[in-house]
Amino acid sequence: GEVDMAIVIVPAPHVPVVLADCAAKGVKAAQIISSGFAEQSCAGGRDLQAEIAAIAAASGMLVLGPNSEGFANLQARLAPTFSPVIDHDGALDPPAGSTSRRVAVIAQSGGVGFSFLDQGRPKGLAFSHVVTTGNEACVETFDLVEWMVDADEADVFILFLENVKTAETFRRAAAKALAAGKPIIVVKVGQSEAGQRAALSHTAALAGADGAYRAMFAHYGLIPAETPSQAVDLAAGFAFMGDFSPTGTATAIFTASGGAGGWMADSAAAAGLSVPVLDAATRAAIDQHLPSYGASDNPVDATAQAIHHLGYAGLIDLLRDAPGIDSIIAVASARLPGRIEQDRPALQRVRAATSKPVFFWSYTLPHPSAVEVLTSCGFPLFTDPLNCARAARALADYGARRAAFTAPPAVAPAPVPADWPATGPMPEYRAQAWLRDHGLPVAAGHLVTDAAAAVSAAQALGGPVAMKVQAADFAHKSDYGLVLLGRAGDAEVAAGYDQLMARAAAAGATDVDGVLVQAMAAPGVELLIGVHRDATFGPMLTVGPGGVMAELLGGGVTLPLPVGADDLTTLLAGPAVAPLLAGFRGQPAADLAALTRLLVDLAALVAAHGDHIAELDLNPVIAHGDGVTIVDALIVTGPAPE
Amino acid sequence: GEVDMAIVIVPAPHVPVVLADCAAKGVKAAQIISSGFAEQSCAGGRDLQAEIAAIAAASGMLVLGPNSEGFANLQARLAPTFSPVIDHDGALDPPAGSTSRRVAVIAQSGGVGFSFLDQGRPKGLAFSHVVTTGNEACVETFDLVEWMVDADEADVFILFLENVKTAETFRRAAAKALAAGKPIIVVKVGQSEAGQRAALSHTAALAGADGAYRAMFAHYGLIPAETPSQAVDLAAGFAFMGDFSPTGTATAIFTASGGAGGWMADSAAAAGLSVPVLDAATRAAIDQHLPSYGASDNPVDATAQAIHHLGYAGLIDLLRDAPGIDSIIAVASARLPGRIEQDRPALQRVRAATSKPVFFWSYTLPHPSAVEVLTSCGFPLFTDPLNCARAARALADYGARRAAFTAPPAVAPAPVPADWPATGPMPEYRAQAWLRDHGLPVAAGHLVTDAAAAVSAAQALGGPVAMKVQAADFAHKSDYGLVLLGRAGDAEVAAGYDQLMARAAAAGATDVDGVLVQAMAAPGVELLIGVHRDATFGPMLTVGPGGVMAELLGGGVTLPLPVGADDLTTLLAGPAVAPLLAGFRGQPAADLAALTRLLVDLAALVAAHGDHIAELDLNPVIAHGDGVTIVDALIVTGPAPE
Repeated sequence: GEVDMAIVIVPAPHVPVVLADCAAKGVKAAQIISSGFAEQSCAGGRDLQAEIAAIAAASGMLVLGPNSEGFANLQARLAPTFSPVIDHDGALDPPAGSTSRRVAVIAQSGGVGFSFLDQGRPKGLAFSHVVTTGNEACVETFDLVEWMVDADEADVFILFLENVKTAETFRRAAAKALAAGKPIIVVKVGQSEAGQRAALSHTAALAGADGAYRAMFAHYGLIPAETPSQAVDLAAGFAFMGDFSPTGTATAIFTASGGAGGWMADSAAAAGLSVPVLDAATRAAIDQHLPSYGASDNPVDATAQAIHHLGYAGLIDLLRDAPGIDSIIAVASARLPGRIEQDRPALQRVRAATSKPVFFWSYTLPHPSAVEVLTSCGFPLFTDPLNCARAARALADYGARRAAFTAPPAVAPAPVPADWPATGPMPEYRAQAWLRDHGLPVAAGHLVTDAAAAVSAAQALGGPVAMKVQAADFAHKSDYGLVLLGRAGDAEVAAGYDQLMARAAAAGATDVDGVLVQAMAAPGVELLIGVHRDATFGPMLTVGPGGVMAELLGGGVTLPLPVGADDLTTLLAGPAVAPLLAGFRGQPAADLAALTRLLVDLAALVAAHGDHIAELDLNPVIAHGDGVTIVDALIVTGPAPE
Repeated sequence: GEVDMAIVIVPAPHVPVVLADCAAKGVKAAQIISSGFAEQSCAGGRDLQAEIAAIAAASGMLVLGPNSEGFANLQARLAPTFSPVIDHDGALDPPAGSTSRRVAVIAQSGGVGFSFLDQGRPKGLAFSHVVTTGNEACVETFDLVEWMVDADEADVFILFLENVKTAETFRRAAAKALAAGKPIIVVKVGQSEAGQRAALSHTAALAGADGAYRAMFAHYGLIPAETPSQAVDLAAGFAFMGDFSPTGTATAIFTASGGAGGWMADSAAAAGLSVPVLDAATRAAIDQHLPSYGASDNPVDATAQAIHHLGYAGLIDLLRDAPGIDSIIAVASARLPGRIEQDRPALQRVRAATSKPVFFWSYTLPHPSAVEVLTSCGFPLFTDPLNCARAARALADYGARRAAFTAPPAVAPAPVPADWPATGPMPEYRAQAWLRDHGLPVAAGHLVTDAAAAVSAAQALGGPVAMKVQAADFAHKSDYGLVLLGRAGDAEVAAGYDQLMARAAAAGATDVDGVLVQAMAAPGVELLIGVHRDATFGPMLTVGPGGVMAELLGGGVTLPLPVGADDLTTLLAGPAVAPLLAGFRGQPAADLAALTRLLVDLAALVAAHGDHIAELDLNPVIAHGDGVTIVDALIVTGPAPE
């Protein structure tokens, strides 16, 4: 008869034969539990895995694994896995009072994947799937995301990710999930390892360890989590409150305990929420119910007395129409379920009535019955104040990203310029000329090959000049004293030329094209604008502090290329860059329009040449009060670093 | 007969009478559960609380509260509290397999305080006390810390703190606890509120929200926690591993799951631990036991196979003498207790044998029996990888702080200089003169009152000069254009004088003493060195980036005054300041000896005048390759801000 799925648990060397038999039989899907493939350090394992991939590709059979712990489709009550989490039949049932939105877990680690089930069930999460993908020889994490989004099989994702195998699959699936409003919470491991490798290029270092992943996640609205409880709590926030899409980050906190309310206010601030004083009408309505030792400013210290009188639902009623407030956080003690159980009808009613998301934090260890009442009324209950605040913040950020997201513009690849080296840095004057030819605002300059020509060039430029030796093997010129700044007058310029050539000879430069004589730029804000090519995701644009500040301030923001103009505008307005541009200590604010134009043009240009640029560093770009100037340009051609 | 303790639960207005009766009867201690005192916004409550404090002070009776939820002395099996956590007799028993080190909770919030008991017991923590101190009219949090340290009533503290009432009690108790090796984990709330108020002075703003508390905690080795689980997990780290005092932060991780091992490696990096590759001998010993798909570099991916073969104890044996490793993190799956239960004797043996602290993280939800085995063998088991790594890091930091701590030097208060204003800023030339008179390296300068004198002063100084209007009501001169820089030559200086006086008149300055003509300092690293007086803890010294960098970089390190020279040396070598001083882009490294001398002299001087300086800003101090120069000095006299 027909076979839907084969489960392969034979030793690794026998797997290809078994899989080929399955393919011949017309089996639709196979999962390979066996280990001993690409996760081994020896070559044999990688070869075996390639054989599997080839069989899957040739036959069209879906293959999960190898080195997978299996999966559970809880909706279909199908669980071909040896995970001890699926230890009894009830393990597949949703917990009492659970959310109607379903959480899917997709994990590249078996044990970790199934553990989310154990951790989410007591919080009222209903899981649709747990899939452990192992080595992903065929089916990848984002293949599964895409399928579950397309088929509406899940509403919220928790991913445990060591790497993305195929960038295009990631882009397609992540864009679909965002469009469908199905948030993806992602635990990405291997960041510290990536950090150890990160000193590959200046821009890559500025982008930071795992910077390309973080940039991709931010761009597609994925929500990073660092710990198991963060992942589960963020999922709970979306699973219970995903019907709201708040447009801001102002929260109203009410509490029975002043101390716990202060703790939540700090947590809210740490998560980037604001806790503004409430409006007078809302305060007046609340004040009617407070004893003398309560407070209605925000946090609302309702006191145990008002909570007893009004119930949590009554407090939510008083706050749910407060102007300028985007979310409500209820600080509760859920250790004794009695008061909350009494409140069940009122909580159901207020859940239907509220136009704002509501998050509960219990500062005491909650009773399971209290969890059941709250979750079945549609409210998440957190035991960690910071995770509670993070969930509220993530909901706001996700809504904002959904609204702002635009698909990357299409880019036609451009031919490689004829004079580019196959790989390695090119002399700066050629990099500058290429940028200038494409309309970018590079400082004026001339390549000269003797002192007299240097003097003429400086006269033509007018004012003091910078002088830089041009040699392909000395891309980082200033480390060797091969740059002179602020040379003025014929004598200084001529002497400068001779001095630079002598230094170049002393440094052992063999391939000197001459000296670039360049106009000194007017002062302004110094930025680094750079591109590095990530091995998985391709070219990445980073903007951060430039010049001397680059090393001290670090930081910067990274975006994947190609990118639309809106995202570049948002980047310049964001907290990492905007303070640099605002002007301080009497400096004028940077010319935002000119800077935006530069970024848009550069992004389009680099995206078109993305396969041939390994690194591009413009450092500094000086943003004046009027206009911008690219002062220094390094382009390294060739393939992406591995 | 004799009464040891009275529990007062009458309405607030009647409390003073009852308390006076107790005092008359010779009752030794009273706790006041009643609310309605200083926690109210009206004056009546504060007056009632003052009456209570007076009765306690006059009689010598110990009074806990008011507005307390009571306390539990679990060792004495005494629990006069209405907390629902003490809901049955067994609630006072230590959990099975609990640590021998006892954890005391002292909390200014009742509900929060007792909740730590609920949260710590399942992790094997044995509690000695939970004390909820309410409004602290008489007995304060650090009175209790001091008593418990002196009487050896507890070994590890968890504090929930809204504020410190008496700084001297804090200093004394914290120093005693540190000396005794009894770590204090502290949740300090109200930080975001403090942040809203923080713009009181430039230095206070640089020190940051709640900066004085954070500085005091760092100085006395208190360990901050942000969430309930962090507090409990940090306490568990110390309770179980407090017999070790690692001297470094290098950790060895072993794991049965590669994915979970990567997660822990990232968590370790995030917590500031290093995960170095193991030495060859240790790797060779481990490699003997690993299958081909294992890895011994670090994290040690032992695989489920080697864990099954060796047990967790066997892996610890292989790592416990590894050179260059300060702690061990075992990444385990404790969902099924069987393997761990079998291992009990081996775990007991290796706990006695190891010379390094060992921390377990279970990436699956642990079975209570597994927790019991591990904790009764003396190992903490964490469910959060970041908290696990933080606990390992906190142990190392605590040991380092204990070794480095020196009591603050004694300081004899100095008389207030006769020419200081009672309150408010003084003109800079006077601030500069005072600092110069006490041996500090202030830039040379002269106060002049006409243009001719300005020219003479500039000639005497030689080279270009800075010129600054001196008026007490214009302390922040540069905001009004009352500073000119780099004036050179008689004509520029004379014109500058007239220009400044015109601007001062235009700005409405009424109290102009003249113009300070000051030598321009040589270039170098610009630092801000400032002092602000905290309302609770007195003068605080902050060192951070200066000049233009102050606003952009922010940051800086804050230390309480008085302070010893060792702590100042450590400050300059620390991560917040050292990178500024190292020299970059061809600048020479800062003269550390001269900078240290300046800090030591300034700290002593300010400590002696601490009661009269509200704020002192030296911004910038320029650290040259040889020597340092104070370029700008602002002193504001008067009482500390409330």
